[in-house]
Amino acid sequence: MGNLIIGQSGGPTAVINSSLAGAIKAATINGVEHIYGMRYGIEGFLQGNIFDLGAYFTNLYDLSLLKRTPAAFLGSCRYKLPAWKDDEATYKKIFDLLEEYKIDKFLYIGGNDSMDTIQQLYDYAVAHGRSERFVGIPKTIDNDLPFTDHTPGYGSAAKFIATSMKEMIQDNESFGAGEPRIAVVEVMGRNAGWLTGATALSKDTDCGGPDLIYLPELPFDEDDFTARVEKILSHKKSIVVAASEGLRLADGTLVCDYGMDASHTDAFGHQQLSGVGRMLANALSYRLGCKSRAIEFSLLQRCATHMTSRTDIDEAYNVGYIAASKILEGETGTMVTIQVDSREPYVAHYEMHDVHGIANVEKKVPLDWITEDGTYVTDEFINYVKPLVIGMIEPHFAAGLPKHLKIK
Amino acid sequence: MGNLIIGQSGGPTAVINSSLAGAIKAATINGVEHIYGMRYGIEGFLQGNIFDLGAYFTNLYDLSLLKRTPAAFLGSCRYKLPAWKDDEATYKKIFDLLEEYKIDKFLYIGGNDSMDTIQQLYDYAVAHGRSERFVGIPKTIDNDLPFTDHTPGYGSAAKFIATSMKEMIQDNESFGAGEPRIAVVEVMGRNAGWLTGATALSKDTDCGGPDLIYLPELPFDEDDFTARVEKILSHKKSIVVAASEGLRLADGTLVCDYGMDASHTDAFGHQQLSGVGRMLANALSYRLGCKSRAIEFSLLQRCATHMTSRTDIDEAYNVGYIAASKILEGETGTMVTIQVDSREPYVAHYEMHDVHGIANVEKKVPLDWITEDGTYVTDEFINYVKPLVIGMIEPHFAAGLPKHLKIK
Repeated sequence: MGNLIIGQSGGPTAVINSSLAGAIKAATINGVEHIYGMRYGIEGFLQGNIFDLGAYFTNLYDLSLLKRTPAAFLGSCRYKLPAWKDDEATYKKIFDLLEEYKIDKFLYIGGNDSMDTIQQLYDYAVAHGRSERFVGIPKTIDNDLPFTDHTPGYGSAAKFIATSMKEMIQDNESFGAGEPRIAVVEVMGRNAGWLTGATALSKDTDCGGPDLIYLPELPFDEDDFTARVEKILSHKKSIVVAASEGLRLADGTLVCDYGMDASHTDAFGHQQLSGVGRMLANALSYRLGCKSRAIEFSLLQRCATHMTSRTDIDEAYNVGYIAASKILEGETGTMVTIQVDSREPYVAHYEMHDVHGIANVEKKVPLDWITEDGTYVTDEFINYVKPLVIGMIEPHFAAGLPKHLKIK
Repeated sequence: MGNLIIGQSGGPTAVINSSLAGAIKAATINGVEHIYGMRYGIEGFLQGNIFDLGAYFTNLYDLSLLKRTPAAFLGSCRYKLPAWKDDEATYKKIFDLLEEYKIDKFLYIGGNDSMDTIQQLYDYAVAHGRSERFVGIPKTIDNDLPFTDHTPGYGSAAKFIATSMKEMIQDNESFGAGEPRIAVVEVMGRNAGWLTGATALSKDTDCGGPDLIYLPELPFDEDDFTARVEKILSHKKSIVVAASEGLRLADGTLVCDYGMDASHTDAFGHQQLSGVGRMLANALSYRLGCKSRAIEFSLLQRCATHMTSRTDIDEAYNVGYIAASKILEGETGTMVTIQVDSREPYVAHYEMHDVHGIANVEKKVPLDWITEDGTYVTDEFINYVKPLVIGMIEPHFAAGLPKHLKIK
């Protein structure tokens, strides 16, 4: 039996290392001789950055710590392989390296672009009669992969975002006797509003939730937005708005690009860029004359491993475990998917899906899961995301801070 | 025996409600007939916004939930009372209200300005031969109150910031095969660098910590800063810088004000403001031509109750408990302080300190706790903050999210 290699690619998530832990576990108990890791994804692999990953994990504590480690333990990349028909040399190099290390099983944890990598490698192998196998493990906080009910990484990001929303709404409501206070919270997700919509989870008996939610699936109208905020201001002093970083105007311009002005430089002589949150907060300050602030969750929404969802971390582990088990049984050219049988109670199972056609589809929020006025998500959306944030996994603490596993 | 009232003031912290819980507990077991709360601090009090707080807490679960609730449960204000000699009418109104509700014990949880309120009320009472008593309960994430070793709220903010730093540094290191990546993280604290310095806690065997730390205690020099980053770039691809929001240039200009340019408006026609993080990240992008991003912890650093320090939350509870106990014994015109007898093992006790002289002093980081080159904190600093982040208190979860107590 040949060796196995595994890599991580694209933007990290809070649970991408759980998938790695699951794959290592399955490969280990199935007696794979060498489990290799590629540093910095396929980009590092092409530079020969390959190491003995199995040697890192000689006890269960390390795997448990790996599950609690944020960011890509192996390192990641944003590197899109050329189509193999355009650049056989690159592929020859990859397969030479696989041969050199006696690797015939290749697992790759990632999103759309990573599944394109799996697809290209699989197609090349088939076209050249090679025996190496390639299986994809889904991962993305954006939740935009098709054919899977949802994507590992999404649930934890949704949980962190909804938790932070609850806390910030409480904070924003603290100053009720003074001037109105408006906060515009910018949430990740360029083309799909899954994470922005998840802010609605904060709405409960102990929290009113955001007042307005703007997803990138619908065009954004500044006049309508300010009019709505003005109306809410007539009966409420604290307003919190959730806005996707990818909001576009009706003509397709990104709101964040719209804020750029090449003629402007700051006092240091540098041009300044603006995010959506700041654009919208400024719009309110100037048009309504009220105090408003922009808040960005930024990297925290994808790396806050201190606040993960148990459901998500378990599913991330499972897709890794299943991918490694299946590739050992002969599976190739596929990605693991999560299929949900029941949301309440939550029951899910896993399937394998042909990797072709995954890379080019971005799954967006269905338009009928957005309210008619375009400023909130419906109950269908909330029922969809609700089970994905359930459960907690506590960090391992040392000196009061979460402990992580670091590659040497 | 008369009744007791309690209020919260200034920027909230993750543990300000623990102090409230401690005070309610002590007042309850000591048989205070009515425990009143003021909504929105002294500002709401002056508007007659007073309610029966004791009626809210009829079981221990509620107090436990209050300890886990972010932001000011009672509501807060940023309202500075005029000096009593300048405006006797306002003080007459306050004391009339106290009489109306038969209140002779007044507790106020807050920072510098709030201690000024306690001082003014106490001085007025003394000057007018009144019997009402006034005691302050310290609170501020900024840790800038004098006469107390540290301030409740600081430890939890430090813990959240250091935890997030660890996670973001791991994230930033993920892309090691591509271009260098620089993140500038802006941390709260206008004049004191206690929170910015706490980012150094992230440095451990599993994390290199921030590469540079800039505190507001020392002037900031852009040339020196970019030169240092350039030097680090020669051997490291991931750089994370921690910068206080209150950094100033040598001439005293705030870096964040320096970024303003009244002549510039964005495409919506609004002037844009910039934070320190964005200013510094832009400086690096333009001067070194490298990818850099600005990250703001923003409100999260003061309201992330999902990640509090047990030490901090216990001390916050204790200062509230002691304040209520002491005021019942006749104490007035004082603030509770924390005195640390030993940092390792950590042993602390509580004292009462004359409230005069507290309001006008901002305790800053001692200059000899900053390294000579001004870009890091020393071991003295780290040993100081280390015990304050120890221990965890888990939220009460409902449907996967932390549950809070909300005022009705």
